[in-house]
Amino acid sequence: MVERRTPISVSDAVEKVMSKKFEGAVEWVPISDCDGRFLAEDIVATHDVPHFNRAPYDGFALRSVDTAGASRENPFEFEVVEELGAGMVPQKPVKEDQAVRIMTGTQMPAECDAVIMLELTEEIKKDSRIYIRFKRPLKKGENVSFKGEDAKKGDVLVKKGSMINPGIKAVLATFGYDKVPVAKKPVIGVFATGSELLDVSEPIEPGKIRNSNSYMISAQIKRAGADVLYFGQLVDNLEVSLEAIRQALEKVDLLITTGGVSVGDYDLLPDIYDKLGAEVLFNKVGMRPGSVTTIASLENKILFGLSGNPSACYVGFELFVRPIVRTMLFSDKPHLQKVQAILGADFKKPNPFMRFVRTKITYKNGQLAVVPSGMDKSNIITSLAGSNSLTILPGGTRGFSEGDTVFALLLDDQEGSVWPW
Amino acid sequence: MVERRTPISVSDAVEKVMSKKFEGAVEWVPISDCDGRFLAEDIVATHDVPHFNRAPYDGFALRSVDTAGASRENPFEFEVVEELGAGMVPQKPVKEDQAVRIMTGTQMPAECDAVIMLELTEEIKKDSRIYIRFKRPLKKGENVSFKGEDAKKGDVLVKKGSMINPGIKAVLATFGYDKVPVAKKPVIGVFATGSELLDVSEPIEPGKIRNSNSYMISAQIKRAGADVLYFGQLVDNLEVSLEAIRQALEKVDLLITTGGVSVGDYDLLPDIYDKLGAEVLFNKVGMRPGSVTTIASLENKILFGLSGNPSACYVGFELFVRPIVRTMLFSDKPHLQKVQAILGADFKKPNPFMRFVRTKITYKNGQLAVVPSGMDKSNIITSLAGSNSLTILPGGTRGFSEGDTVFALLLDDQEGSVWPW
Repeated sequence: MVERRTPISVSDAVEKVMSKKFEGAVEWVPISDCDGRFLAEDIVATHDVPHFNRAPYDGFALRSVDTAGASRENPFEFEVVEELGAGMVPQKPVKEDQAVRIMTGTQMPAECDAVIMLELTEEIKKDSRIYIRFKRPLKKGENVSFKGEDAKKGDVLVKKGSMINPGIKAVLATFGYDKVPVAKKPVIGVFATGSELLDVSEPIEPGKIRNSNSYMISAQIKRAGADVLYFGQLVDNLEVSLEAIRQALEKVDLLITTGGVSVGDYDLLPDIYDKLGAEVLFNKVGMRPGSVTTIASLENKILFGLSGNPSACYVGFELFVRPIVRTMLFSDKPHLQKVQAILGADFKKPNPFMRFVRTKITYKNGQLAVVPSGMDKSNIITSLAGSNSLTILPGGTRGFSEGDTVFALLLDDQEGSVWPW
Repeated sequence: MVERRTPISVSDAVEKVMSKKFEGAVEWVPISDCDGRFLAEDIVATHDVPHFNRAPYDGFALRSVDTAGASRENPFEFEVVEELGAGMVPQKPVKEDQAVRIMTGTQMPAECDAVIMLELTEEIKKDSRIYIRFKRPLKKGENVSFKGEDAKKGDVLVKKGSMINPGIKAVLATFGYDKVPVAKKPVIGVFATGSELLDVSEPIEPGKIRNSNSYMISAQIKRAGADVLYFGQLVDNLEVSLEAIRQALEKVDLLITTGGVSVGDYDLLPDIYDKLGAEVLFNKVGMRPGSVTTIASLENKILFGLSGNPSACYVGFELFVRPIVRTMLFSDKPHLQKVQAILGADFKKPNPFMRFVRTKITYKNGQLAVVPSGMDKSNIITSLAGSNSLTILPGGTRGFSEGDTVFALLLDDQEGSVWPW
């Protein structure tokens, strides 16, 4: 007998999944290995930056008060009493009409409050002393980077959950993080199902296709920020598959199967969920592609039964798995970032269900536009290659036209969105 | 004597660097390791996708011609003569008023040209035979994925130079790439210079700062798609530094030094370039930050003398080093993608030079907007942490106002731009 399933809405489905508790864990990695990882703690300034007044340019430090009146007609000459290389600390007090040669980044003498740039001076030697001549007055504070002007001790500089980019890594180095607290990568197990699947190294044969979903989803898992454990293909035997899944669950935080979740007669997964004692949160979602998505909860783990259709599998991962991964990576915006855009093509086919169209976002004259990245049947994989976004076409509408305002989810973005979108 | 340098324009500088020849190399990696790498060859469909007509849904394959006239009032009953599980190949010819139970993805019997979805049928047993009853006619081709509809043999599906994303990985698996031809990662060497630099693990002390540039630039190198070899700090001795650089050059494709390129007295690099016999392409660029950027060419290698100021170093890398890396990764759009955006803040300070402001791009009502990600002095590192773009403010202007249309370069984008922007 055919099982009739009742679809729930996409937002009910997301909320059901996200209502479970997911806890991230911290690990410390050497700063040289922290790129692309997610911060497990806020980064707080442990000292002012800069932590001393310093020269932002090569030049001469002096007291601005002494420069009043300098002009082209009336150039001033100051004696250079010290020369400070990078990293050196002033040794001599600077008096009236004196200057100190100072290099970029060097600490200012305490008496000085301005720096005249090297290019604006002329060096003069008289009686084995060195003088500079210059033709303009300086303002108090001119060309000085003041202590704390970049960051004050105690400032929160980077929020936890941020992906470490080059700028964040610079901040970490500045504050002496030779080891960095990052979120442990959640481990996601993957099983493929489907007797039609050939291994990637096998030649094609009638009625069979190569297993592309396992490779695709492993890439999605890595992009989301997690590690993947691929367990191979489930065999068409309930007891064997059940045992394989039981063993896998001990090694992972989340478990994904692709395929075998449709209402077909050969689908073992409902029985497996049942025998595991897992609570099925839903087994059909009002969306295209991906309506035959089943998600079940077992203790603190989630089992995702994603569709065997590549595009449905892809969308199911991004909507339901990614936000859990990002939550475990301490993000407070774990969902794909949702942006408004102009639709670049007609979608005349009405659809009772919410539709996620694989699209490419382009920027035209400062305006976001989305165009389909290929045909949009759920079994079409080539359109996934060129897509950087999923455009949301709400269900229950009469189709969409080029120029309509729509919303799209960004696939390669690290900013994220809160829920509800 | 102070050396007076003549700045060249940013576009002259980029063109001078890019006029050199950079050759990428190919290596083959297992498909499981190809994520984020760059394709070294176009991916061409070696067979049609799908390579047989198949059912996109679970249901019953039949001949559409037999269904004409079916309706609620006049339901039809077809005998089910075969049951095809995934991966199975039809064995029996399908005759008039017969149907074949078929699973998602399964090859269609040659005689059938439509699939009625499982949900629209009722199963009936009569005399130990199985029949389906249904109440609507089907069109020729309805619910059939036709051979080649996703991709035709010979189609170029993905261009070389593309970064491998989950969708591209699925395409690679589909066509049997158990090993994938990717661009070899260029190797970039990094030296820090500056006696003011402390190691990241050292406590801060007066006049000294921790070395953040080496960490930042190593992250930029990785983000660009290359590998980094960090050689530590150059010492303040010409012969020793020269020898260190000579040895480093044997191990790398490109070599970066940060710091030691300003017009200060302690700068050894001009002498080093001279003794190496390197051709200095330019030593000053009309831009802020990063005007004191020196780039030299030696045989088939480029030496980058980037500023010691973090922001100047950052911008110098993205403008001059990244496009070389991406060229060696086979991209035909190696420069940062340039997009139009609305300026979200005033920049009243006039500047003779082109300015690159560290900004954060946001999407508001489908419109790109850029706001400064922090203070914009060239020594300010914390603003780098929050930036995802560099906004270009052309030189020679009287300042910019909120609401002005500007252009920005996207830092985290994989699309890229051709030159000129």
